[in-house]
Amino acid sequence: MKNNSLKKTSYQIYGINNCLNFLSYKNNYSIKKITIDKNSKINQNIKLLELIDSKDVLINFLDHKNFNQAYNYKHAQGIVLEFEGNLYTDINDLDFTASNICIIIADQLNDPQNLGQILRTCECAGVDGIVLPKHNSIHLTDSVLQVSQGAFNHVNVCIETNLKSAIDHLKSKGFWIIGLENSIESEQWYNMDYKGKVGIVIGSEGSGIRKLIKNSCDFLTTIDMKGEINSLNVTAAASAILFERQRQLASK
Amino acid sequence: MKNNSLKKTSYQIYGINNCLNFLSYKNNYSIKKITIDKNSKINQNIKLLELIDSKDVLINFLDHKNFNQAYNYKHAQGIVLEFEGNLYTDINDLDFTASNICIIIADQLNDPQNLGQILRTCECAGVDGIVLPKHNSIHLTDSVLQVSQGAFNHVNVCIETNLKSAIDHLKSKGFWIIGLENSIESEQWYNMDYKGKVGIVIGSEGSGIRKLIKNSCDFLTTIDMKGEINSLNVTAAASAILFERQRQLASK
Repeated sequence: MKNNSLKKTSYQIYGINNCLNFLSYKNNYSIKKITIDKNSKINQNIKLLELIDSKDVLINFLDHKNFNQAYNYKHAQGIVLEFEGNLYTDINDLDFTASNICIIIADQLNDPQNLGQILRTCECAGVDGIVLPKHNSIHLTDSVLQVSQGAFNHVNVCIETNLKSAIDHLKSKGFWIIGLENSIESEQWYNMDYKGKVGIVIGSEGSGIRKLIKNSCDFLTTIDMKGEINSLNVTAAASAILFERQRQLASK
Repeated sequence: MKNNSLKKTSYQIYGINNCLNFLSYKNNYSIKKITIDKNSKINQNIKLLELIDSKDVLINFLDHKNFNQAYNYKHAQGIVLEFEGNLYTDINDLDFTASNICIIIADQLNDPQNLGQILRTCECAGVDGIVLPKHNSIHLTDSVLQVSQGAFNHVNVCIETNLKSAIDHLKSKGFWIIGLENSIESEQWYNMDYKGKVGIVIGSEGSGIRKLIKNSCDFLTTIDMKGEINSLNVTAAASAILFERQRQLASK
């Protein structure tokens, strides 16, 4: 593996919501250390303290000055949690038995803010997994986990060397592949059928979906822009499409 | 005015896209200075250079080292543009003659990233204006402008001391007010009718819409969460609703 972010197995998250989400659900990760600012409001958060108590884990209490020196984050809110584990799922281990399944294929995203927000939206919109390419893509960094606000605990993230092969694999399992791309052939996003097994391909922030990947799509869809700047953020586009899918599933 | 961000009349934006967007459209702002990194790729960007040439404006060329010392931003890309002007519109100056109009009322947002992304989504989704409260709310800061990627040039932003009065004003002009709030009375977002004149109220990141404001809404709507974390980012929620509105307008 050339990509260092894939060798990463130890992570750090912070803030009340993020730590609450992490501790509230069963996972296979191993908590290494929890550091708490003795002078912060964490000590009044009964729910969080009970969850921490229920784990067999080292707690490091620091006074406010030392906490801030060690973890100089804007939104740490007095708590930092360090853990180890494998955050990725093998694409062959995904469960494709349900009748409605949605997999996001993100072609070379590079902004941690965007991947984190997409993870969060995917979790809320019932997406079953996200596939990222091994090269030229952001993966699960501490920043991504932080922005995802706990969503990484609940969404399968797969890394594939060859995104085209991953798409072919999904097709062999009965998936239709829809690419989000502004092109003459593209149909409006609300004219797509998102029922059944669908893979939705989103492109990078700057240059969209690569040609080879675009050619692998069964359909192309677009979101009509109504203004002048003509560029919707990829996370906003994903949200529009994923909740249109939910609308269609609810009205079947 | 107690709020310092409202006294602000000089702004700084940076990056190729943001400056291109700013220079491409007619506005009433006065450009004070453009600073360019002599050793950056800006000097190969013909479109940008031509736009700069067309304005009667002071250009400050710096070598790479001095540019970085002066503007130590991650994404400055070799260009910083400083301008002055009033970025706000009086709510009484909004044009309500079209048959389909949408105004976003944002009750006490506090994250510049969120307001910037919402501005960008609003511009792409044909929203006519955003109303922000004067107190306890983020306004148009440099960070907000930056994240909006030029959208601030095209979306009306109004500041109102009393958001309840602003809602009453909109109602008197024939608007229906829809609040986005997870509540027993809330209807699913796709069961709302967004045709005609609608005001959509979104709440703050932490605590939603204030009670008094919620009581002013004609309808409440919600976006069903399909996962565990149960909290969609406010920008993703806005995107889902604003493009559902576009779907309805297109299918009328």
